Amino acid sequence: MNSNLRKPLLDPSLERPDWQLSTPRSNQKLWLDKNENLDPELSKVTSLLLSELNPMTLSTYPECGELYRKIANWTNTSPESIILTPGSDGAIRLTFETFINEGDIVVHTLPTFAMYPVYSKMFGAKTFPLSYERGENGPVLTLEKIFEHITRVKPKLFSIPNPDSPTGTVLSVKALREIIELCEKLNTVILVDEAYHPFYEDTCVELTKKFKNLIVARTFAKAWGLAGLRIGYAVGNPEIIKFYHKLRPMYEVSTISIAFMEKMMDYSDTMYASVKRLNEAKKYFSEEMTSLGFRVLKTNGNFQHISFGEHAEKIHKALKDRVLYREDFNEDCLRGYSRFSITTKENFKPIIELIRMEMKNG
Amino acid sequence: MNSNLRKPLLDPSLERPDWQLSTPRSNQKLWLDKNENLDPELSKVTSLLLSELNPMTLSTYPECGELYRKIANWTNTSPESIILTPGSDGAIRLTFETFINEGDIVVHTLPTFAMYPVYSKMFGAKTFPLSYERGENGPVLTLEKIFEHITRVKPKLFSIPNPDSPTGTVLSVKALREIIELCEKLNTVILVDEAYHPFYEDTCVELTKKFKNLIVARTFAKAWGLAGLRIGYAVGNPEIIKFYHKLRPMYEVSTISIAFMEKMMDYSDTMYASVKRLNEAKKYFSEEMTSLGFRVLKTNGNFQHISFGEHAEKIHKALKDRVLYREDFNEDCLRGYSRFSITTKENFKPIIELIRMEMKNG
Repeated sequence: MNSNLRKPLLDPSLERPDWQLSTPRSNQKLWLDKNENLDPELSKVTSLLLSELNPMTLSTYPECGELYRKIANWTNTSPESIILTPGSDGAIRLTFETFINEGDIVVHTLPTFAMYPVYSKMFGAKTFPLSYERGENGPVLTLEKIFEHITRVKPKLFSIPNPDSPTGTVLSVKALREIIELCEKLNTVILVDEAYHPFYEDTCVELTKKFKNLIVARTFAKAWGLAGLRIGYAVGNPEIIKFYHKLRPMYEVSTISIAFMEKMMDYSDTMYASVKRLNEAKKYFSEEMTSLGFRVLKTNGNFQHISFGEHAEKIHKALKDRVLYREDFNEDCLRGYSRFSITTKENFKPIIELIRMEMKNG
Repeated sequence: MNSNLRKPLLDPSLERPDWQLSTPRSNQKLWLDKNENLDPELSKVTSLLLSELNPMTLSTYPECGELYRKIANWTNTSPESIILTPGSDGAIRLTFETFINEGDIVVHTLPTFAMYPVYSKMFGAKTFPLSYERGENGPVLTLEKIFEHITRVKPKLFSIPNPDSPTGTVLSVKALREIIELCEKLNTVILVDEAYHPFYEDTCVELTKKFKNLIVARTFAKAWGLAGLRIGYAVGNPEIIKFYHKLRPMYEVSTISIAFMEKMMDYSDTMYASVKRLNEAKKYFSEEMTSLGFRVLKTNGNFQHISFGEHAEKIHKALKDRVLYREDFNEDCLRGYSRFSITTKENFKPIIELIRMEMKNG
């Protein structure tokens, strides 16, 4: 192809993973590598809803009015405050599409969700990342540093996942409100990505009623256990969301995902029970790891960081055939930590046992 | 919101339908309004596949390597020639995202699929539409007119659905090849949207191996009867498709749609049988309408245009409670024609009977 056909400013360093290199995960292992919610109690309900799904949802174009009303009701907003998107990733992308012109300045945290740097390159933004520093108790990003950086750089867009991933760190709603007010003064759009809600319950959704420079991204992939449906939403002031709707594709998401979520929204109690069960299991896992002498970080997503220290190599070897998880990080603020997505107490027990055995034998 | 937050060049005339005004369609009527494939024989198979779907597809992130390989095999291309998209709409949008900068020239046909004018506005393109003229036998757009227009306007992108919708018209592959060669000389990207394949079998896919300025869009929404899964793909030379992959979102489409299509690709015979059945029913319907004295256009999608002439009003009234269809068009080239999505002979019979009765009584 003649190279001048494509967008001239596409960053040559924009590279994406090759899906052909990815191989399906083994069914023989526990999947604690992608922060999915595979809680069997929750799966019972979602499996039942799948079996009850009207097959017409396969063959017909979407109707999404009722789901908009249900999400508005659940978030205590209005349908005009919402746009359905393919996961929170879709809400993030749409935020770049709505606001970012080539050369605009974007501030995202680092490390963070992989797509912030990708979309920054894709949309030709100049990025001034805010890096977490290594602290005694995990990654640190102070409110002072955020204030200083935003004031100096004056970005068009500041993205702050809350909790952030992979760090698991949070800012309080009070702190976020101060940042939102600063951003308002600087004419900066702030995107608060609440993908892990309500594993972490505090939210900025209510603030979208007051602040027109605030967008909150949400997904049904994490707490609701529906990563396979690619459905989430952005919440914002209707005066912003109307621009998002202008830029939406023909249909926001698929009929089958809409129909499924329309039913699933009636089971928020089941979702909350799963979140409670998993947060308790996380506490149990953390305490067991602490009692074995490992450093455990306080995290606020559905994942847990453990530092196995000098025992790391033998523990990774012992767990290799039984569980998929992230063994280590390249980033300084998390180097030496392993990340496990949280699962049930029943699932954690044999893992803990394997680790305990390894420590005994070692 | 401060208005300078959003993209300055967003066309103020870009307006989108308000989903809140849309109401679900009545189950009491036959749905012949959206060119879905609701063939009961096909639905038997898709319903069965739905019931066999692994519930893990709800809760896990996608793996799409196998589906890429199956589509490559089915289209006689390579996985590197393909990118999965949310319907053919997703392939169209990604084509704009890959090639169109603000101010670039786009030529699309008129009337055509609603999103071509929308994406042109969304991405700030200048459009020089190619209008169908009204002819004795339906909408007309000659090869000469296309050649003259493209040569004069020298667009960055020329989109030509084949068959086009709502016109139902086609260009031969020979004619398309001549257009593609002209576009190659002019450094124009040509997007051939084959959403209705294989209701209309001829295809430009093979030409993507030779021409690096050609993209073919496809969807599983029409012939495959899976409008509810929002899954389709673009086929192009790997040298172009690699840029599409750079611009893809986190995941192209949902796990559930990928898992479903991975199974469904093994049932292409069932899809072909449905297409044959519906094309025969279309012939039957057309002949019955012709025998009643109505003008019937030759169309190549899964829809049929009928002009009820002076009887239009009473026939619309007679069909009102029984069937959803498009009563008329605003565009000159199709004014006075009604459009029915094609269905089975069994479904068409009572409609034909209603029309026949109305003509007798009238």
